[in-house]
Amino acid sequence: VEPQLPFQTVRPTPEHDALVILDQTLLPEREEERTLETLEEMAEAIRLLRVRGAPLLGVFGAWALAVLAERARTGEIGDSKGLLSHLREAASTLEETRPTAVNLAWALERMLRVAESVVSREGDAAAVSAALLAEARAIHHQDREMCRRMGEHALTLLGDDDAPLTLMTHCNAGALATGGMGSALSPVYLAHDGGRKVRVFADETRPLLQGSRLTAWELTRSGVEVTVVTDGMGAPLLRRGEVDAVVVGSDRIAANGDVANKIGTYGLALLAREHGVPFYVLAPTSTVDLECADGDAIPIEERDPEEVREGFGRRTAPEGAAVWNPAFDVTPARLVSAIVTEEGVVRPPFDEGLGDAVERARRTSEAARRENVAP
Amino acid sequence: VEPQLPFQTVRPTPEHDALVILDQTLLPEREEERTLETLEEMAEAIRLLRVRGAPLLGVFGAWALAVLAERARTGEIGDSKGLLSHLREAASTLEETRPTAVNLAWALERMLRVAESVVSREGDAAAVSAALLAEARAIHHQDREMCRRMGEHALTLLGDDDAPLTLMTHCNAGALATGGMGSALSPVYLAHDGGRKVRVFADETRPLLQGSRLTAWELTRSGVEVTVVTDGMGAPLLRRGEVDAVVVGSDRIAANGDVANKIGTYGLALLAREHGVPFYVLAPTSTVDLECADGDAIPIEERDPEEVREGFGRRTAPEGAAVWNPAFDVTPARLVSAIVTEEGVVRPPFDEGLGDAVERARRTSEAARRENVAP
Repeated sequence: VEPQLPFQTVRPTPEHDALVILDQTLLPEREEERTLETLEEMAEAIRLLRVRGAPLLGVFGAWALAVLAERARTGEIGDSKGLLSHLREAASTLEETRPTAVNLAWALERMLRVAESVVSREGDAAAVSAALLAEARAIHHQDREMCRRMGEHALTLLGDDDAPLTLMTHCNAGALATGGMGSALSPVYLAHDGGRKVRVFADETRPLLQGSRLTAWELTRSGVEVTVVTDGMGAPLLRRGEVDAVVVGSDRIAANGDVANKIGTYGLALLAREHGVPFYVLAPTSTVDLECADGDAIPIEERDPEEVREGFGRRTAPEGAAVWNPAFDVTPARLVSAIVTEEGVVRPPFDEGLGDAVERARRTSEAARRENVAP
Repeated sequence: VEPQLPFQTVRPTPEHDALVILDQTLLPEREEERTLETLEEMAEAIRLLRVRGAPLLGVFGAWALAVLAERARTGEIGDSKGLLSHLREAASTLEETRPTAVNLAWALERMLRVAESVVSREGDAAAVSAALLAEARAIHHQDREMCRRMGEHALTLLGDDDAPLTLMTHCNAGALATGGMGSALSPVYLAHDGGRKVRVFADETRPLLQGSRLTAWELTRSGVEVTVVTDGMGAPLLRRGEVDAVVVGSDRIAANGDVANKIGTYGLALLAREHGVPFYVLAPTSTVDLECADGDAIPIEERDPEEVREGFGRRTAPEGAAVWNPAFDVTPARLVSAIVTEEGVVRPPFDEGLGDAVERARRTSEAARRENVAP
């Protein structure tokens, strides 16, 4: 049984003609949903970070294509080949919104393969749309499952079930970043649900404050004790010796175990090592990109300087000052104590273990597919 | 000759009946002065950080007592003993505003000693006030001198005069933090003034953003190239290998070289060492507290959680979340490459060198005093 969270990050309307998201830009002040109908609204929702978090972007992308297919089919595009070409364009627009997270591209590609397969078997537009809705539902369900399994595997690293647990995390790799109960925060919810005393330190994560705005919000909303610190407080906090482990998510993991994640992760990993605190990365295998040999091959998105200059609605840096605003950094594999995927715990050196995990996940997924599409 | 800065942080009115400060809480949006007449306004200006920066608090405290003496003398307190007791109370109120910075207490005590000395020589209230005005002027002048000398000593560590220079700094230890051109930023202004190409990376310094609001403002205002980064970007920035050195100020330095400074400094020092970048602390000898054997003896001010939760007029963390908000941290001496005071460069191990520097400063100051008060 899985802990029930008191909010939903993304869902289709009952008619499958629109997506409903929890607008994350309004948190923590307002808990407000927003309905997205068009490709432009969906792409904008990603760009403006109304919806964000690598695994959730995958789930969102899948639902987006399913909804767009259903809308096109019941609208102007009646034939399956026209629909496929429409979906390819939509996928390409969605994929271009954010270059670092690999899950979005992964989900979009998976959806397109399903559509192609239906078209190649001469299915009509209705069949394409139905298959895409089923695939999006499967991706969402798998994401929930992956969160739970990551949490269970991670708890094997986090000591006795009865002992109080204090974790530190960066950015938001929680329920708001996935279709389930989160990657980095999944052991938190599982442990809390099991009656264990859990405390989380969330660093703010400038410039967009996903730690204080989102992680602190979802934990508070779910009854978990959380303390917010600014990004510069990590070192003295870790020095106090109260933190059992640092847990973070990832936007892309290279074949050698280098981890791209929200800016600030690399520094925190160095501080964790300096203070003898384990540093765990929790991410589904869809985050692992075996095509990237190491972190140097991962593209790093640079975002608008205004996010830093005027992020609080008030100018906080003079106009004449330049700003460097990379959205992510790369933590070298040597600083990572373990990578936890839905397939289990991978320890350094990561090369072999990550390849194995990806392969196991592929086989599981293939087996599920054969079962579903059996003649 | 000293670089001329286009703004003044604190000055008395020509009649010496009020203080005029640049209100630092309004930067970088507005460059606006504020006039302070009463003890309450002066204490509030410190508490609200309208005036801040350890050396500037010393200069401000000195001018505050001088102005309060002049106001009391021309107001209700005509006798010198009554005036002295009035000043002692004022000093105690001012000193209690901020517990970590030692310069404020140092300057207030120095001013009281001058007042006591005049009273013990049977000087009247006018003589007390005149002596205090002269002493405040001397403290301000010495602070300017100390800034220049710190800058000159620091430049001996920063390579060839013709080579481009790239520094990173934390918080604000610039002209806005002193009565002169700053501690950490003094080599920046000297090098820039000498025609050297200088570039500064300023980290934001949450929660109060002294880096982006103040350091970036004063450098931009003075024509120095500055790039703002968030606190979490220090690690990838230092990894790029462009930064020649990290320079910071200090609020208190223990006898063994442990350095209390704005929260975030300790983490940055660790990151600098990890990337082989020298970490220099620039601070006047008045910052050195030989009474504190090491950093554990330095009291660390914890500030209002609302600074983190709602720092910029917009709620950025949910009400249910706790906040830890220490204003300072302690960087252990082993991470400090050198401490630069007005008396020169002190290298590790710091114990002996710091004691010597303090002693040299004391002798210089005694000599100056004997010269001034010669019969």
